[in-house]
Amino acid sequence: MKRVLLFTVLLIQTAFVCFGQETGNSVPASTNVAGADYPRIDPQHRVLFRINAPKATSVVVSLGNTALTKGDDGFWTGRTVPQTPGFLCYTIKIDGVELNDPSSETFYDAGHIYSCIEIPEQGVDFYDVKDVPHGDVRSVWYKAKSTGETRHAYIYTPPGYDQNVKQRYPVLYLLHGMNQDRRAWESQGRANFILDNLIAQGKAKPMILVMEDGGLAGINLAAHRSQNPAGSANGAAAQRPGGMDPFWNGFTKVMIEDIIPMVDARYRTLTDREHRAIAGLSLGGAQTYQISETHLDKFASIGVFSAAPFGFSGIATAYNGLLTKPEAFSKQVKVFYIGQGSEEGANAGRAIHEALDKAGVKNVYYEAPGTAHVFQTWRKCLYGFAPLLFQDK
Amino acid sequence: MKRVLLFTVLLIQTAFVCFGQETGNSVPASTNVAGADYPRIDPQHRVLFRINAPKATSVVVSLGNTALTKGDDGFWTGRTVPQTPGFLCYTIKIDGVELNDPSSETFYDAGHIYSCIEIPEQGVDFYDVKDVPHGDVRSVWYKAKSTGETRHAYIYTPPGYDQNVKQRYPVLYLLHGMNQDRRAWESQGRANFILDNLIAQGKAKPMILVMEDGGLAGINLAAHRSQNPAGSANGAAAQRPGGMDPFWNGFTKVMIEDIIPMVDARYRTLTDREHRAIAGLSLGGAQTYQISETHLDKFASIGVFSAAPFGFSGIATAYNGLLTKPEAFSKQVKVFYIGQGSEEGANAGRAIHEALDKAGVKNVYYEAPGTAHVFQTWRKCLYGFAPLLFQDK
Repeated sequence: MKRVLLFTVLLIQTAFVCFGQETGNSVPASTNVAGADYPRIDPQHRVLFRINAPKATSVVVSLGNTALTKGDDGFWTGRTVPQTPGFLCYTIKIDGVELNDPSSETFYDAGHIYSCIEIPEQGVDFYDVKDVPHGDVRSVWYKAKSTGETRHAYIYTPPGYDQNVKQRYPVLYLLHGMNQDRRAWESQGRANFILDNLIAQGKAKPMILVMEDGGLAGINLAAHRSQNPAGSANGAAAQRPGGMDPFWNGFTKVMIEDIIPMVDARYRTLTDREHRAIAGLSLGGAQTYQISETHLDKFASIGVFSAAPFGFSGIATAYNGLLTKPEAFSKQVKVFYIGQGSEEGANAGRAIHEALDKAGVKNVYYEAPGTAHVFQTWRKCLYGFAPLLFQDK
Repeated sequence: MKRVLLFTVLLIQTAFVCFGQETGNSVPASTNVAGADYPRIDPQHRVLFRINAPKATSVVVSLGNTALTKGDDGFWTGRTVPQTPGFLCYTIKIDGVELNDPSSETFYDAGHIYSCIEIPEQGVDFYDVKDVPHGDVRSVWYKAKSTGETRHAYIYTPPGYDQNVKQRYPVLYLLHGMNQDRRAWESQGRANFILDNLIAQGKAKPMILVMEDGGLAGINLAAHRSQNPAGSANGAAAQRPGGMDPFWNGFTKVMIEDIIPMVDARYRTLTDREHRAIAGLSLGGAQTYQISETHLDKFASIGVFSAAPFGFSGIATAYNGLLTKPEAFSKQVKVFYIGQGSEEGANAGRAIHEALDKAGVKNVYYEAPGTAHVFQTWRKCLYGFAPLLFQDK
């Protein structure tokens, strides 16, 4: 079996046994790779590190910019200050070189692959894996006819989907942020567990979630071979000619002409606009404004989480002026939900919410306490948004 | 949108534009993260690197132990010797510190998270993403009653599964190697594309693939919160008390009492032994010998890829002596397939194949040309094995 070890184990490794450091009531992070005892988290949300780097002269963890201390055994240990609960990405800097922690799972965020750690929040368990029926998250490849690309989506089908073969389901299209991809809402956002738990409690209707690569290019099969099965769409992708345009008109076109028709053909969906919602975080929130504005015939519910305001042109002009007729708007838009973190500026949503209120447009506003532009905010936004959907049908 | 950049970009980064190095006919690796132009692969299977590390004094890539050369711009460039085609994991060593390449997607292998690169093999395209109908790979969470754990599986349902709601399908249980997990056969092995392509050509029957965490612990919900949604099962896992026992008796029990009943209850399977097969690579091959030996009532076809021979006790005793009665064995075992790479020793399969031949036991033997104990071997084994399955029904 040793042949499986294809190359030497990394010099920088987290130890599997703990000694030489007071671990108290700390437990290994749930984001560790199988068997890794470090990093550990204590009840005060401090993170304990223990890293083997006998030749290093300095080891600093980016969480709280924490310098570790070298022991006689060559292991560097240390504890961060208390961290804000949620999902945090980090690096380890060894002699000035920043690197990922081989003991943590990695995630695609901010355009790179990063080590990240889950810090449990006291009293908050709506995104935990619980003993409830679980939906499946499917890795789905399909041909996008409008672009000729082969594209990749993650699609959540709710518990019971495979058993209730005559039932059709409403659909929430859930968009990620800039320099993230289809994986973010599952891996970082835990959207599947949020829905599993809400559905089990009867708080949300069983629904399908669709997560795609907003604005990233798919695969042009004529030009590529042996494409990445697990990862992002490749090729020119985010850097392709046209700057940000693929994120606006490009993705809108793919959404309307490819993604929605594929989902409606391949899965048992309810295909009227009343049973279709769209929501997104950050860049995905701005896309949500833009896509729903030009295609209000396709979506009856809208969720915008920590969106940059440039997706929204203002009360007078957004939605083709429909916001100036609040009653007409509310007749079309069943749920208009705006959320952000309390540690973000008002431009992440609060300002638009206040303008909507002032204009008499019905909307739901939520502010996640104590968090900024991070997934803990967006998990809570989804948790607030999903129960409002598809309830009058 | 800049707020999405949650922390400073890694010091070590691959440039998005190329200059200062002859790139020839090279193309970005399909395993790169979106937008990354390096690493690149040329037609001679050499890998080109370009890494920004202005403060470093040495940069060495583990592929061919290739030392890069520093340019005046602070970028280190270099080209490896020709690499064996297939899926290769690697590290970059900067001033003696080994780290992952933030421009490559990462994969769980050898018990760690590694950067890996796909080197296309000339004339070999059976695992490429093609313009054919694609099955879904589902991330599936379920309660294992025999252990009380919540466990995680990846399950491939073939093209048409959601449309042909009255059709039931045969199942291949596909086991990973040591220090891998449920993700390996999809991410590294491209099992879903191999099946998509074989099914589209009419060479393999549409079948379900089940990939689980052989031998790793699932999640004990009583003890854990906010478990890893994307990654491995956590907790004690591979290091839990009992040494290798969880990989033998432990996993056999989970397979028989939990995984198979869950799959048969949740998906439209054919539940007789003639429509159930088991195969595995390396440790998973040894598990395949053990599980099929004690549960021949459950599996009618067996595939063993590069297995350590200690899963197999010898002609006289394996399968409770049934190999000494070749006709009786062949009546029960429809396909007995043994594969390995030509660059592995005879103990990876050839020796057992020769012993079976000598004993008159019908078996299929395959040797992947030019590869060793790597996924390129196992992709080819699956490509040879899958078409033999479920053909006489």
